[in-house]
Amino acid sequence: MPAPDIPAALHQALALAESAIGLTDPNPRVGCVILSADGAVLGAGHTQPAGQAHAEIMALRDAASRGHDLRGATAVVTLEPCSHQGRTPPCCDALIAAGIARVVAAIEDPNPEVAGRGLARMRAAGIAVELADADLADAAREINIGFFSRMQRARPFVRLKSAISLDGRTALPDGRSQWITGAAARTDGHAWRRRAGAVLTGIGTVLADDPRMDVRLVPTAKQPLRIILDPQGRMPAAARILQPPGEVRVVGPGRADLAALLTELGTQGINELHVEAGPTLSGAFIDAGLVDELLVYQAPMLIGEGRPLAQLAALAGLDEARRWRRVEATAVGQDLRLRFRPT
Amino acid sequence: MPAPDIPAALHQALALAESAIGLTDPNPRVGCVILSADGAVLGAGHTQPAGQAHAEIMALRDAASRGHDLRGATAVVTLEPCSHQGRTPPCCDALIAAGIARVVAAIEDPNPEVAGRGLARMRAAGIAVELADADLADAAREINIGFFSRMQRARPFVRLKSAISLDGRTALPDGRSQWITGAAARTDGHAWRRRAGAVLTGIGTVLADDPRMDVRLVPTAKQPLRIILDPQGRMPAAARILQPPGEVRVVGPGRADLAALLTELGTQGINELHVEAGPTLSGAFIDAGLVDELLVYQAPMLIGEGRPLAQLAALAGLDEARRWRRVEATAVGQDLRLRFRPT
Repeated sequence: MPAPDIPAALHQALALAESAIGLTDPNPRVGCVILSADGAVLGAGHTQPAGQAHAEIMALRDAASRGHDLRGATAVVTLEPCSHQGRTPPCCDALIAAGIARVVAAIEDPNPEVAGRGLARMRAAGIAVELADADLADAAREINIGFFSRMQRARPFVRLKSAISLDGRTALPDGRSQWITGAAARTDGHAWRRRAGAVLTGIGTVLADDPRMDVRLVPTAKQPLRIILDPQGRMPAAARILQPPGEVRVVGPGRADLAALLTELGTQGINELHVEAGPTLSGAFIDAGLVDELLVYQAPMLIGEGRPLAQLAALAGLDEARRWRRVEATAVGQDLRLRFRPT
Repeated sequence: MPAPDIPAALHQALALAESAIGLTDPNPRVGCVILSADGAVLGAGHTQPAGQAHAEIMALRDAASRGHDLRGATAVVTLEPCSHQGRTPPCCDALIAAGIARVVAAIEDPNPEVAGRGLARMRAAGIAVELADADLADAAREINIGFFSRMQRARPFVRLKSAISLDGRTALPDGRSQWITGAAARTDGHAWRRRAGAVLTGIGTVLADDPRMDVRLVPTAKQPLRIILDPQGRMPAAARILQPPGEVRVVGPGRADLAALLTELGTQGINELHVEAGPTLSGAFIDAGLVDELLVYQAPMLIGEGRPLAQLAALAGLDEARRWRRVEATAVGQDLRLRFRPT
């Protein structure tokens, strides 16, 4: 009798979690696969919008709708099943009630209301509980990197997006920037916006480009909150960014304290914050050490004189320069998608 | 009886040709493998320094030294065997004399004194002559891209090297640039210098950095010619670039005509020209359309204010920007090696 292939099931569960991006915020994106003792998939599912069923419940329902008896089955899930009563009942109770014999979770839930209690409660109920290998745990954390940030640091994961030429320009000296990168990169950029609970820009970008800053080049179940920093109260009433769909928040007049703003957004359930701004605001985020990831689309183009990625504080020497760790370099059409994290 | 694996033998011959980089200039880098009718390798070799034996002769000698009878054998070679009397006798005559039955060449020799005549002469002597598939022909051309340029365009292949930060800076505003990229990238840069018949820089770089511009971080049989453009005659007698090993040429006083200089260097047998210069000279080469390849090491660092990759003519719009085709993106240590060619 073949045994359950746990890594394969976890990959399937991770793909289900990926498919829930843009759907579940502020809740984490979770996938669950239930396997029989001989490795057959009995049911699968992913988290629904906040207030609705979690991944485990969806997978249990899926298995039940197929008439499967789940006694002795294995549940493979990308995040520790919850143990607390939120807007929905605890998932670990549902797994216990269904007679699940074994649970493999990719990683512990960082939510202080869970944080190992879900695993402990299932163990106490006689379920064999395991955590996955480090590489699968890392993949599971990446899918919910913003949720982990909010739970562990009380602020969103901040991703700063930029589209630059090979020589590091984001626009001509007069601000014209359409287009440096190609259509594939622009579409890809919307997929990254979709991950975010909020997209943040500055009034300078609004006045220069009148962008919508919504998610429209890829399908999405919900629009991120759009936030505009407008210290001098210059927002035009007719700006496209103020129009539906999606909610908008103008911060100002008055200069925003970026760190305080992040804490506030964390309190409001923003897991990932997508910053897409001009060099002044980008530089302020970077110099304050508040950027967790640089998402850079590099076009194979030389511009010469032009606007920089970020206006940064002057350096006394190159050893002072902010160094990053490259976590990705992938071709997207003619362009290159580069991602960096602080060292 | 197993048949000769021609693609495998061509890959072996290409590796031999690669190993001759830094040895054969101004002659092309060529590798040759001789196979028996049942596919055994009877002999192999690569081109020696100019005036000495070509790859085919080295492979024939290697086979003879092992006592092999080459009648009926197949010779696999990365470039069409030469048909003309240069400093050495024609290779195709040697292959004919050895009784070789079949020759597979990766690509025709672009030298107008050869250009198919070698293949024709061997066919006339009863040898079965073939050219390789397009992908192997491309790989063979790449190894000798400078030789092809000199034969077909009467000028070297110009590779412009730059080391930049993620935001496109090559130095701090005062010119300090040590170090943006890491040790692995700097060593890799010397391997690219080694490919070149000449390394070219400007007097500004000499005055600012006092570089040697030689090949020392990787082993080499010969040093490229070092060329310094010095329009105002400012070269200090004590500059390190003037010191051995290797030859040096100072161009100036007087402004150099870059296109005419390239033609002159072609006449002098320079196949690949490696340009490693400041933004003014780099910009002059780029704006003149004389750069065949950009070799860019991108460090995961943000600098902010600093010197640009190249000082370019102002653009009226982004559609005027010079676009390139990315031909490589490879991690080298913490940095990324990017290569681009004109579209």
